[in-house]
Amino acid sequence: MLLDQYNIIKLRTAADEDCKTSILVIYTGGTIGMDYDENGSLVPFDFEVLLEKVPELTRFKFWLTMLVPFEPIDSSNMGTEHWLSMAWLIEELYDEFDGFVILHGTDTMAYSASAMSFLLQKLAKPVILTGAQIPISAHRTDARENLIGALEIASMQESRQQKIIIEDGSEVIKEQNVALVPEVCIYFDNLLLRGNRSKKVQTLNFTAFESQNYPHLAEAGIFINYTKSAILPIPRGNLDFKSAMDDNVILWKIHPSMNPKYYLPMLENENLKGVVLESFGSGNIPTEKWIIDVLEKITKRGVIVVNVSQCAGGYVLQGHYETSHALTQIGIISGNDLTSESALTKLMYLFGNYDNRTEKEKIIELLQTPLCGEMTLF
Amino acid sequence: MLLDQYNIIKLRTAADEDCKTSILVIYTGGTIGMDYDENGSLVPFDFEVLLEKVPELTRFKFWLTMLVPFEPIDSSNMGTEHWLSMAWLIEELYDEFDGFVILHGTDTMAYSASAMSFLLQKLAKPVILTGAQIPISAHRTDARENLIGALEIASMQESRQQKIIIEDGSEVIKEQNVALVPEVCIYFDNLLLRGNRSKKVQTLNFTAFESQNYPHLAEAGIFINYTKSAILPIPRGNLDFKSAMDDNVILWKIHPSMNPKYYLPMLENENLKGVVLESFGSGNIPTEKWIIDVLEKITKRGVIVVNVSQCAGGYVLQGHYETSHALTQIGIISGNDLTSESALTKLMYLFGNYDNRTEKEKIIELLQTPLCGEMTLF
Amino acid sequence: MLLDQYNIIKLRTAADEDCKTSILVIYTGGTIGMDYDENGSLVPFDFEVLLEKVPELTRFKFWLTMLVPFEPIDSSNMGTEHWLSMAWLIEELYDEFDGFVILHGTDTMAYSASAMSFLLQKLAKPVILTGAQIPISAHRTDARENLIGALEIASMQESRQQKIIIEDGSEVIKEQNVALVPEVCIYFDNLLLRGNRSKKVQTLNFTAFESQNYPHLAEAGIFINYTKSAILPIPRGNLDFKSAMDDNVILWKIHPSMNPKYYLPMLENENLKGVVLESFGSGNIPTEKWIIDVLEKITKRGVIVVNVSQCAGGYVLQGHYETSHALTQIGIISGNDLTSESALTKLMYLFGNYDNRTEKEKIIELLQTPLCGEMTLF
Amino acid sequence: MLLDQYNIIKLRTAADEDCKTSILVIYTGGTIGMDYDENGSLVPFDFEVLLEKVPELTRFKFWLTMLVPFEPIDSSNMGTEHWLSMAWLIEELYDEFDGFVILHGTDTMAYSASAMSFLLQKLAKPVILTGAQIPISAHRTDARENLIGALEIASMQESRQQKIIIEDGSEVIKEQNVALVPEVCIYFDNLLLRGNRSKKVQTLNFTAFESQNYPHLAEAGIFINYTKSAILPIPRGNLDFKSAMDDNVILWKIHPSMNPKYYLPMLENENLKGVVLESFGSGNIPTEKWIIDVLEKITKRGVIVVNVSQCAGGYVLQGHYETSHALTQIGIISGNDLTSESALTKLMYLFGNYDNRTEKEKIIELLQTPLCGEMTLF
Repeated sequence: MLLDQYNIIKLRTAADEDCKTSILVIYTGGTIGMDYDENGSLVPFDFEVLLEKVPELTRFKFWLTMLVPFEPIDSSNMGTEHWLSMAWLIEELYDEFDGFVILHGTDTMAYSASAMSFLLQKLAKPVILTGAQIPISAHRTDARENLIGALEIASMQESRQQKIIIEDGSEVIKEQNVALVPEVCIYFDNLLLRGNRSKKVQTLNFTAFESQNYPHLAEAGIFINYTKSAILPIPRGNLDFKSAMDDNVILWKIHPSMNPKYYLPMLENENLKGVVLESFGSGNIPTEKWIIDVLEKITKRGVIVVNVSQCAGGYVLQGHYETSHALTQIGIISGNDLTSESALTKLMYLFGNYDNRTEKEKIIELLQTPLCGEMTLF
Repeated sequence: MLLDQYNIIKLRTAADEDCKTSILVIYTGGTIGMDYDENGSLVPFDFEVLLEKVPELTRFKFWLTMLVPFEPIDSSNMGTEHWLSMAWLIEELYDEFDGFVILHGTDTMAYSASAMSFLLQKLAKPVILTGAQIPISAHRTDARENLIGALEIASMQESRQQKIIIEDGSEVIKEQNVALVPEVCIYFDNLLLRGNRSKKVQTLNFTAFESQNYPHLAEAGIFINYTKSAILPIPRGNLDFKSAMDDNVILWKIHPSMNPKYYLPMLENENLKGVVLESFGSGNIPTEKWIIDVLEKITKRGVIVVNVSQCAGGYVLQGHYETSHALTQIGIISGNDLTSESALTKLMYLFGNYDNRTEKEKIIELLQTPLCGEMTLF
Repeated sequence: MLLDQYNIIKLRTAADEDCKTSILVIYTGGTIGMDYDENGSLVPFDFEVLLEKVPELTRFKFWLTMLVPFEPIDSSNMGTEHWLSMAWLIEELYDEFDGFVILHGTDTMAYSASAMSFLLQKLAKPVILTGAQIPISAHRTDARENLIGALEIASMQESRQQKIIIEDGSEVIKEQNVALVPEVCIYFDNLLLRGNRSKKVQTLNFTAFESQNYPHLAEAGIFINYTKSAILPIPRGNLDFKSAMDDNVILWKIHPSMNPKYYLPMLENENLKGVVLESFGSGNIPTEKWIIDVLEKITKRGVIVVNVSQCAGGYVLQGHYETSHALTQIGIISGNDLTSESALTKLMYLFGNYDNRTEKEKIIELLQTPLCGEMTLF
Repeated sequence: MLLDQYNIIKLRTAADEDCKTSILVIYTGGTIGMDYDENGSLVPFDFEVLLEKVPELTRFKFWLTMLVPFEPIDSSNMGTEHWLSMAWLIEELYDEFDGFVILHGTDTMAYSASAMSFLLQKLAKPVILTGAQIPISAHRTDARENLIGALEIASMQESRQQKIIIEDGSEVIKEQNVALVPEVCIYFDNLLLRGNRSKKVQTLNFTAFESQNYPHLAEAGIFINYTKSAILPIPRGNLDFKSAMDDNVILWKIHPSMNPKYYLPMLENENLKGVVLESFGSGNIPTEKWIIDVLEKITKRGVIVVNVSQCAGGYVLQGHYETSHALTQIGIISGNDLTSESALTKLMYLFGNYDNRTEKEKIIELLQTPLCGEMTLF
């Protein structure tokens, strides 16, 4: 069995025999499980310490299993291979658990949550990423509450009635438990955010994540107050795990007085498949000849360029100003209110699963379609 | 006289003969003065329209002069040459006016304000950049209030007593009017922000600018409430205009799974003088070998790399985590809480005025020194 | 005709013959139309000045009519008689206009908006209250934008298809223009708030109003972005104007160490019909004997006591803590998330239109029912 | 010894013999230490449970002592006698501890913190009130972090050099540890607020307290970041405990259409010494004759009326509008930016310690003087 290959800890919780809710915690590293090394730098350490530090874990009314899919890492080193391995693990263990909590460093949590949301199409169970600004071993720490809240949300289910047609053609009404939040989310500092809408916005305070262009899915206070209208519906069909990502994608953040010497070689590389163009304001870039020329040249050659804003709030309105009008004409795709993190990982996902030569139109169509709530259509 | 070379409009204001306060408005383009063209895109138009649209301008109790230093442009096209020409103009006309208001597009306003703050060392008069999300010709617009507020702030002076030693050695106390805000600022949506601390954060709402790592300098309500402790003191000595900028600088925004194929040629270009490294969280980057190697190689060769965070709030704490510890060792400079906009224009300014071969140590020293309030020392 | 009795100004706007949208502006006084008197205090002045100050008014594409229903007053002097006269006026002129804008002082605007929402049951057209922190005659002022935005919102309509069954029994689909916001609202500083959810929260800054327990209905930026899911639907049936209010209601804000000497006479007055009990936190009060005793005594006698929180955010959870448990037992009504302003004016409205002796049960039922979006049921 | 009279728990902490920092925790009740009773209501329970729930307490590097001064109560029942007993306790044990933490219900925490700030004049050590929205016995709770943060802040000291003149007239420089925050504060949800500037603003979320008219004194994130310029200096002289409060004070929250029948008897009671007049906006009230008349009559008779705003942000500007102009003339005192909580407890404190007949001028002078940072002078 798959789980046997991993270092697994089954936590004793207060769950009795009748309890059927079961949560998998995947520990990947990050500040939440860090300690100081001899140089005074924070380094990842063994995750068993979580149990000592948060005795509350043993009091939960659901079954808890913990697992380490790879050597714990600082989240700065996360990338496509880790996202694929986590998504694959969730797919393999999908039927055995009701919810998944991923402990992750904060630095790239928004990138990972975006990537995972694309890799796990038709997800019907919660996948909650959380972490901390302060290690769980410190006295004063946000780690405990982030972890406990994420577990509570991952275990939330609601009962729904479903009409089922049985063999003789008659109908029966069946009660079924479904997940309250069938999404890849980030839970941090009492807010539950859609993963592919989130950005890390603070390095020091606990208010580290925001989702400026989409309402939060829940806020924890005396109660956890869910904004039900903002949560995705349970999808039809089975989990559809996509097993590849392609890193022939660059992020080009626009600035004034860009010197073509440095940026042209990057853009003109013939292996390049996609560009996240991080533009000014609502999608504007300098209209200097070399910039328009190179963008036109590479889009003609098949490179897909997605225009997202370097402002965290609001969206790209390609064509509203003269400087962005030209962009539509040369085939640049408006990213609307996609975050950079989402645009980048969506391109990596699309190029991993569709051929950029023979399926270019399909890729562009999917790019302009919200696949899992990552974008608003206007 | 210099002013004769420009298209100048002297506005009739309510100022009487005794009024000595005099404001120069420099119109550079941007949404504030835009109109719709035949394609439905917004294009810059002639600034005379400002007068019709804001009759309040004629009621001010100070002298108003307006000037267009170059063909009005969309701010996406702003760059070093425009910053230099505006800064030069202010230097040339410095004694003739008490304050300066620059009408500017919002897209690059934070870059321009940062650049101008470095070009105008020892500034003792207000230089207030403002603009609008909606053209001044629209019914509902933020342009009027932004303009009127910026003018009011640019004209604000306070009386200070100064001890002066006269020829015979005796002292006299002299009353002198000095500017309340001797800084390059952005005034937008009722907030006065230090220019080199500002970022555009919203493309649609009026709350377009923020200065997350530094308090706002004033908030306009029934009164304009100045946070005096946050405003720079009047500098000693004369305005020190710096007349050059160098664009051999790149902005490298880090992301997971970066592919060396695309980024290495950009970094290894031998003309490159400076890199703004937009890192994760509090200054972390992936510790992949190619990344550390290329950074080490170029810093050894003399390229100056400044580490700033892609999070808008908080700052770089180089060495706090293992992943950023290596950076200090290979000579990467911590940008502390510099914005990307400030880091980029500060490098352009330093390389324009100091030789990156013979004065490298001086450049690094100045980079780590707040020149005009752009950075906090920890 | 009714309008002939008033001092009316028909504004020339850009509306042509075919334009059918028509807005009534009711000017009641307040800072927006104030000027300084000889003592340096602000006093209301004649509203004709609005036209000079906001030339934009003449450019609107709808018909504008202005009217002064009573001598302009400072809003501190607003009360039941003014609310009744404004509501009556709207009812009388309901068919002649598509939207109504009320210019009102900020001090009691939340009380007036709450009161008007109850007096105008089944409202299907916008009634937008607005005002200003700074008079419209000042250079720098929020008055212009508040007024222009309120007018734009009051004129907003959307086309809806409606099935109509005609005489011969067949159905026709008819296009009909309906108001986008069929509610009594406050528009201030770019936010459109439901009137009976609003509170004045700031005396100096422009961010004067908030609606902490309900989302804003719209935010004005480059576009006016409506939160359609938060806006009330067009009601069935005709406008139902209620013509009476009763002021035998008190507001009792609880504090520690209350001395019965002062509060008992107020509570024990035999004419008293209703009490707004402004309690601590989620509905708690001191459990001292005299307090519980007097509340029990008066509720038994027929006085209706509504429990609202003195905290602006969150709501009363009567029974959650021991100190509020007793309240439910003695018949005190939980106000849930009603504002004080709404609770007070709702009681005045209910006692004005229902007999507190013979229809007590009806009053209590209505008090616990959201009549126009003023309260959330949990 | 005094401590012997109380139920005291000395916690084993990690402090070794050399550690001299010592903190006293005073447990008074409130949600933080509550549990559900058989009716499902929350009731206070025994505070020993704190130790089990927060094992981190035993790891602190300072000595911890806990004490219960009176039967634990719901904070709705707090009043003058409790404030006096807590303040007296702190005075009695002042030299034995370096800092004090008071565990308190959230409902009246702002009232208690205000009261304590007046009772402990010339305070040179931290007195930090904290509590929780969720009991410390719950899995998910804000109690742990509030408690741990409050303890950390209460133990913070900084070393200062002080010049001391010794017997022979020579000077020596002595290092001395002084408290970083010599104030009565509220610590809640990572913010440290001045106690007499705080208000409870939220009943459900963890963001329960705000101090809108004064900056927060610290924010806890990865570090606790103190706003040193906002913290009161160490006072000269010894702690000056005031041992009396007088409850002949009422809070009168103004509303439209007030009926004199109910409010006149309260105001005209001959025992009344003080009124907190909670007015509209920047200090306005209805100018109806009965209101002005009664206020004039009672102020003439010696009652002291303080005008504070029912808006949480901004302040009273008595005389700015016509409606408040009259107030100054009849002797009503402007409370500037005092909170209601502070105004009420300041009056109770002043009447408790000064005679309202013979020392009226002194009381008025002290009312208009910031005694411990509670008010801004304009």
